[in-house]
Amino acid sequence: MRQQIPATLSASLFEARADAIIDTARELAVLGWTPATSSNFSARIDDDHAAITVSGRDKGKLGRDDIMLIDMHGNAVGTDARPSAETALHTQIYRRWPEMGAVLHTHSRTQSVASRLYADDGVIRLQGWELQKAITGYTTHESVLEIPVFPNTQHMPELVDRVDAWIDGGKPLHAYLIDGHGIYTWGRDMQETHRHLEALEFLLGCELDLKRLRAS
Amino acid sequence: MRQQIPATLSASLFEARADAIIDTARELAVLGWTPATSSNFSARIDDDHAAITVSGRDKGKLGRDDIMLIDMHGNAVGTDARPSAETALHTQIYRRWPEMGAVLHTHSRTQSVASRLYADDGVIRLQGWELQKAITGYTTHESVLEIPVFPNTQHMPELVDRVDAWIDGGKPLHAYLIDGHGIYTWGRDMQETHRHLEALEFLLGCELDLKRLRAS
Amino acid sequence: MRQQIPATLSASLFEARADAIIDTARELAVLGWTPATSSNFSARIDDDHAAITVSGRDKGKLGRDDIMLIDMHGNAVGTDARPSAETALHTQIYRRWPEMGAVLHTHSRTQSVASRLYADDGVIRLQGWELQKAITGYTTHESVLEIPVFPNTQHMPELVDRVDAWIDGGKPLHAYLIDGHGIYTWGRDMQETHRHLEALEFLLGCELDLKRLRAS
Amino acid sequence: MRQQIPATLSASLFEARADAIIDTARELAVLGWTPATSSNFSARIDDDHAAITVSGRDKGKLGRDDIMLIDMHGNAVGTDARPSAETALHTQIYRRWPEMGAVLHTHSRTQSVASRLYADDGVIRLQGWELQKAITGYTTHESVLEIPVFPNTQHMPELVDRVDAWIDGGKPLHAYLIDGHGIYTWGRDMQETHRHLEALEFLLGCELDLKRLRAS
Repeated sequence: MRQQIPATLSASLFEARADAIIDTARELAVLGWTPATSSNFSARIDDDHAAITVSGRDKGKLGRDDIMLIDMHGNAVGTDARPSAETALHTQIYRRWPEMGAVLHTHSRTQSVASRLYADDGVIRLQGWELQKAITGYTTHESVLEIPVFPNTQHMPELVDRVDAWIDGGKPLHAYLIDGHGIYTWGRDMQETHRHLEALEFLLGCELDLKRLRAS
Repeated sequence: MRQQIPATLSASLFEARADAIIDTARELAVLGWTPATSSNFSARIDDDHAAITVSGRDKGKLGRDDIMLIDMHGNAVGTDARPSAETALHTQIYRRWPEMGAVLHTHSRTQSVASRLYADDGVIRLQGWELQKAITGYTTHESVLEIPVFPNTQHMPELVDRVDAWIDGGKPLHAYLIDGHGIYTWGRDMQETHRHLEALEFLLGCELDLKRLRAS
Repeated sequence: MRQQIPATLSASLFEARADAIIDTARELAVLGWTPATSSNFSARIDDDHAAITVSGRDKGKLGRDDIMLIDMHGNAVGTDARPSAETALHTQIYRRWPEMGAVLHTHSRTQSVASRLYADDGVIRLQGWELQKAITGYTTHESVLEIPVFPNTQHMPELVDRVDAWIDGGKPLHAYLIDGHGIYTWGRDMQETHRHLEALEFLLGCELDLKRLRAS
Repeated sequence: MRQQIPATLSASLFEARADAIIDTARELAVLGWTPATSSNFSARIDDDHAAITVSGRDKGKLGRDDIMLIDMHGNAVGTDARPSAETALHTQIYRRWPEMGAVLHTHSRTQSVASRLYADDGVIRLQGWELQKAITGYTTHESVLEIPVFPNTQHMPELVDRVDAWIDGGKPLHAYLIDGHGIYTWGRDMQETHRHLEALEFLLGCELDLKRLRAS
């Protein structure tokens, strides 16, 4: 069954969001950040809907049939495709922050290794890097950018609760890692989200390199 | 002499399998996993035949003339091309597991280095990585994925015996490394096998990075 | 408002310089040296003007609308585009050295990590590398190439003063790093500057690798 | 002055050799093994002549005008282009071994770092790697492949003498490193030489990785 777009939604808006996901996914796949059909990507359509990648596809070769419509509770809309279990982590961001327009979850080697290394600390603290300024709201390298590392689980509601608890604790949240897994980050549109992801991958890589070199 | 396809086999099926090998090989060569004409790739045709790469060709530039037909004892069929000595390791998988449809053997730097580093242990144990779930049958990062590391030899029957012994011992086997050499992995079709290989390369790379960083 | 070229300047010369910047930026972006819209590039037009990248654009996808005209005090000319805060570091080079025709500022992982590692020393001393000869004026690997590392600041005049002080101190200056940030280098034209940048990235990478390995 | 081909030589043979150099150089440049216009490449034309890259060109963008004709004493033939100082190291190989048809000299980060690290030992000994078999004449991973590391000098006759001394000492020589510089390797034709280079870069990279990891 092909994706049906409800009459209350703009089909061309869905297609525009799907194409933004496809283009971004292809660029990230070339970098090796989506190995073995991992990773998922989404973009908000309106208050109640988002476009998201169907589970298990090669992210370097997505077509429109690999993007599905969901509501903000993670239910499929107008399709019998099955959304990924991790869809709940996307819709959580859209529900909590109406201004957020895209969520990217990737799975690079740097992200996976950093998550394992800092799992016991539960957080990675970035400071002194000019590129922190690529995260919206940060205007100086002297700021501290905290990326929490949550324990991995195959039970998504636990992860949703941990994310909620962090936000409810009043601390800023621009991205999080899951132990042995990858990163989630978001932004007001696909372009800002892509910039956040590039900056975070760069910063995590720098932090690991510096740790190795300082031990030399 | 060009490859002749026996009347009892479908020439178009051979061509489809050859093309799947050629496409996959090109993608892996770009990543640098097939240096200096190393590596070999095969795909099952039917119960008694497989298509396999001719020895010694540049894996990034394969054409149909670089793929030959063999029987399940590693003999050339309908061609005077010489199959690689390592063909026996491909046919072993097809003979033991009728459901397996493709075998990929690559030779990345990560694979070679990991094989040397864990040669004395004889096995690499992977645990805690989300991407273990990319291996068919694994549903949680809490599982343990064991990759045996066999001693290298230029005498293939020794390797065949070691693989047999591992399987006969009752332990699951999804891939193995050969010391100072590369990896073998397989799956029901080329797509699944490619996914397995990508996941294993990623996991080995993560494991080496983590080892270096934990020592820092 | 599109860029207007004053009648006293050659529009085709501006376009040639803009195109040289666009081509070089695309090559550097592919290498990952301009993450998350960081980095900026310029080329001299005449004694009083230069072309420079508009702040915040994706350096892999620049078009002519992403290049603006400035005077040698960093003021926009014939456009309401806002030049980057770091423009002052470009015009400083053009004002001090009339023979310099291009300035490249990138932000690779190697550059950022090296800058952090050598920030306390305030300088990286390169010696014994054949590729030092790629820097104009160096004719042997036995020379010493010093790259100062200046403290980062969001206040550009401080950086301008540090660069001036280094030059006024009489020491050669072909490039400098800013702590936690990236590199600035320059040359008589875009080709020479590009060669300097490639050589410096290579040398910094070698130096970090060697440091790690000598500690092994 | 364009390259003139003497009547005693085949112009089409020169062009075929030039094109082989151009194609190989482009592939190696993409890998980053020829930074900042370093590296040089040659191919034998006949007993007395070879085609070689003109000094100082970007190896990723060579055209036929960047390839010149030399005699086996390193003199330019039919052109006023200046051959690189390192030409003497190419012609030495062709003079000593009539069966050798191509020489590649590259300058990768791995090659430069390995040369520094093993400069005091004067040699890198490779053993236990399956890919040693990619070097013509090696049939098992149990062989020992020795790569000498010679001290760097801007005076080429010194290097020529060291190479001669190694060969005259009776030890096999398939490649050598120069300290802080890069590698030289050769083969009967461009394809074999390219395979040798790929294998050596891979083996040096593995050896460095293993050294780092064994120290962890």
